[in-house]
Amino acid sequence: MKRKSFAPVTSQQVAQLAGVSQSAVSRTFTPGASISPATREKVMQAARELGYRPNALARSLNTARSRIIGVVISWFDNHFYPQVLEVLAQQLDALNYHLLLFVENRDGTVDKIFDQIMQYRVDGIVLASVSLSDALSQECQAAGIPVVLFNRAADDALTSSVNTDNCAAARQIAEFLLAGGHQRFAYVAGLPDSSVNQLRQQGFSETLAARGLTLQVVQGNYDREQTLQAARSLFNRATPPDAVFAATDHMALMVMDVARYEFGLAIPEQLSVVGYDDVGPAGWPSYALTSASQPVQAMVDATVALLMKQIDSGTLAPEQIQIPATLVVRHSARRPRVGVVESDGYSWFRPEDVK
Amino acid sequence: MKRKSFAPVTSQQVAQLAGVSQSAVSRTFTPGASISPATREKVMQAARELGYRPNALARSLNTARSRIIGVVISWFDNHFYPQVLEVLAQQLDALNYHLLLFVENRDGTVDKIFDQIMQYRVDGIVLASVSLSDALSQECQAAGIPVVLFNRAADDALTSSVNTDNCAAARQIAEFLLAGGHQRFAYVAGLPDSSVNQLRQQGFSETLAARGLTLQVVQGNYDREQTLQAARSLFNRATPPDAVFAATDHMALMVMDVARYEFGLAIPEQLSVVGYDDVGPAGWPSYALTSASQPVQAMVDATVALLMKQIDSGTLAPEQIQIPATLVVRHSARRPRVGVVESDGYSWFRPEDVK
Repeated sequence: MKRKSFAPVTSQQVAQLAGVSQSAVSRTFTPGASISPATREKVMQAARELGYRPNALARSLNTARSRIIGVVISWFDNHFYPQVLEVLAQQLDALNYHLLLFVENRDGTVDKIFDQIMQYRVDGIVLASVSLSDALSQECQAAGIPVVLFNRAADDALTSSVNTDNCAAARQIAEFLLAGGHQRFAYVAGLPDSSVNQLRQQGFSETLAARGLTLQVVQGNYDREQTLQAARSLFNRATPPDAVFAATDHMALMVMDVARYEFGLAIPEQLSVVGYDDVGPAGWPSYALTSASQPVQAMVDATVALLMKQIDSGTLAPEQIQIPATLVVRHSARRPRVGVVESDGYSWFRPEDVK
Repeated sequence: MKRKSFAPVTSQQVAQLAGVSQSAVSRTFTPGASISPATREKVMQAARELGYRPNALARSLNTARSRIIGVVISWFDNHFYPQVLEVLAQQLDALNYHLLLFVENRDGTVDKIFDQIMQYRVDGIVLASVSLSDALSQECQAAGIPVVLFNRAADDALTSSVNTDNCAAARQIAEFLLAGGHQRFAYVAGLPDSSVNQLRQQGFSETLAARGLTLQVVQGNYDREQTLQAARSLFNRATPPDAVFAATDHMALMVMDVARYEFGLAIPEQLSVVGYDDVGPAGWPSYALTSASQPVQAMVDATVALLMKQIDSGTLAPEQIQIPATLVVRHSARRPRVGVVESDGYSWFRPEDVK
């Protein structure tokens, strides 16, 4: 079958068949435009009959709105990001926006694919798991395009971002492990230049340092192979840790596998492991990982609300939004005698009960 | 900061600064167009200086090509689909196509979001994990838009599709479990109307039936809660199975967790479990799941090649592509004494050695 060229039904034809003005057809297919139910029904019937579909691309040139949000994301093997993407796509869809997906290589900056995103005249950009250079951040500002960093923050205050309170949650994890009587602490770090890694490490190490305790740090860099190697190097030491905090669940699960299946360590009797994200597999009974929960729905809600506010108002006042993360207590780490509370079928850590 | 209206730099301005024709600017930014390196460099320098970016949306109206591929996908908690999406986005990006993402609800048909996809004048559509009604399939044909079903097939021969040979792989799984001396077989089914579920069940049950063996079937429907319930119902029976094949790894992992942590069954001593997909967690040592491997890279390669052939040729000759799936043998199922071969650091099942 020969591919037809684009000679679709026009809005004039629909208007003629429906016996209405062309403007009525246009308003029928413009989200939020005023149109009487009776006229709308006439238009819809004619449109169905003729197989008419409004051309979103042409409309975007007229309205200067593409209704496309560019989303850059990577690390699909970390279950957190697919979950974010699913919720984000559903929420944008509900607002009649659509999601143009860009998968970044893992060097963590987005600059080289930025030209492509801009070509599509996107109405907004979400950068999840990647960072934006200062130069590009300024270019977006100049072009009037809202950008929200998701699970990443910029050094400057010019770029909007949505994160959990990484530093506070990491302090809570340190308190939890201290209350559980652990003595030798290790941190499996993500990429050094990722803001969430920096803040998680900072909160954890500062809390330990305040008690005069040191921290062994190894680099997992969010990568499977590097994390496996990092875990092996930890457990091969003369004084291996009895408590490990990994910057993401994705890495924490690998640390547990190395500890159990390569070093024969019993979890949590000989080793406690805590992660960050509370991804699906953290709840699987094979792992039962204690983890700082990032509330994906609330984080995506905040991201979409911030984008829409900037798009609708035409102003780019940047906001840095922080959402609390709660430590979900399962069985991968020894529990302190006090401070763990039960609600909604989950166990949580409430450090105020410890002090 | 006030949002600017779209008054971007024009190609005329770039041509003027570069001292070249407007057509030279256009050719510089058209993938595959002929342009001398010297002219190209002049244009790029002027474009950089002025902050010019070609408008992909406007270009799509001129060329009748949006360079957008609509992708509909669901089941993000099944690791197979995020992996597919990542590879698909990277491959399309390499060809200078972009991916407009639609996340379908889990009813399995895509009809209601189809109008939205069509509004963007996509050059092609990939439907992963969802099916297309016959009516819509015909509408795509009429509009000349290539559609490829990924990991799904249509009843008719009008729609292109890319799958592994589900029936053959399921027969191989039955042979493997028979060779391992199992006697009581169960199948944890996916959604009844999904083609891959039908074919996997068919291959498995027919092979058993040929030996005079019956099959217990329970419905997991690709859903976590339903799969947990289905597994419980199996292991609560008076004669529980000693071999379970789940239609996807995602469900097989849950079956293993229920067997071990709720029923205290030793795997593979008391129960063998086999899955389909070979997702990342299947290789994690906590599961070491024996699974029919779906080669994501090869499947996406075939999908993109098929789309590009149809887009470039302007013909929609449908093709149903089948790629072999190989049974990767790990430790979740009792191994037969013969038929398992080692290569590339993996163990595979070669049923021809059994017969």
